[in-house]
Amino acid sequence: MEKRILGLDPGLAILGFGAITYTASNNIVQDTSVKMLDFGVIRTEAGTEMGTRLCTLFDDLHVLIEEIKPDLVAIEQLFFYRMGNTILVAQARGVIMLVLAQHKLPYVEFAPKQVKHALTGYGNAEKYEVQEAVANELNLDTIPKPDDAADALAIALTALYQI
Amino acid sequence: MEKRILGLDPGLAILGFGAITYTASNNIVQDTSVKMLDFGVIRTEAGTEMGTRLCTLFDDLHVLIEEIKPDLVAIEQLFFYRMGNTILVAQARGVIMLVLAQHKLPYVEFAPKQVKHALTGYGNAEKYEVQEAVANELNLDTIPKPDDAADALAIALTALYQI
Repeated sequence: MEKRILGLDPGLAILGFGAITYTASNNIVQDTSVKMLDFGVIRTEAGTEMGTRLCTLFDDLHVLIEEIKPDLVAIEQLFFYRMGNTILVAQARGVIMLVLAQHKLPYVEFAPKQVKHALTGYGNAEKYEVQEAVANELNLDTIPKPDDAADALAIALTALYQI
Repeated sequence: MEKRILGLDPGLAILGFGAITYTASNNIVQDTSVKMLDFGVIRTEAGTEMGTRLCTLFDDLHVLIEEIKPDLVAIEQLFFYRMGNTILVAQARGVIMLVLAQHKLPYVEFAPKQVKHALTGYGNAEKYEVQEAVANELNLDTIPKPDDAADALAIALTALYQI
């Protein structure tokens, strides 16, 4: 049975997304079936009002989910990096969690270190190592751009490895 | 012309609201016209999933705004109190900002000290002093309960004093 996982790398200015498909029977994933379905970013314009940016995020994420029709969503956990920015990202994340709940979508969360470990075998891997693992795993000729989209595919793969 | 201000004291577990009406001609507020319109709280159940709580907040706030029909919204600014809690409150606040933008409602933000100063004349006033000022200003026999609703009325009055 074909299944879809949507990975999300949440942010206010750029929300990265990456979707993969795979076939599973009796909950056993067929390794050769794992494929990249789509990736990209939802951008909200810096300098426009917070509410307007959250509306864009809300509308575009609804459209994306209706297109991808994921069975599971994987999302990066939020940590405190910088004080000011964390509140903005958390506000955007609230809207993302709302949209997932409105679609009654199950989700899993991963810390950045868990994603690195899942993709490369160690939690302190460099960004390019994770990105190369993503391209290799999904048989892509080039590394997906921008970084936010590659990160989102890595998050989706991390969820897959847990199945 | 009758105008309405909706004050919001944002939180995830409890969102306090307080609405006031007043009459203004040529942007001059008629002091005797200021009245309490409504106050209360939107509660989301602790222990239920984050997404479900954000859905409740989203739906209930839409209903509240359609009932109150405010001309202006006044909302308390978010500061870092406790690390863990701040992310939860910021996620709820993201949903609140989204709903305001979906209704194309203008809003103003105030720090807690600004509210205390506006109501009592000094920024380090005790909570009960602010609440007594709210009751006095709006000719209420008793102090509105719970505290979150009284705080929301104080935020609405702070916006009024700036007009």
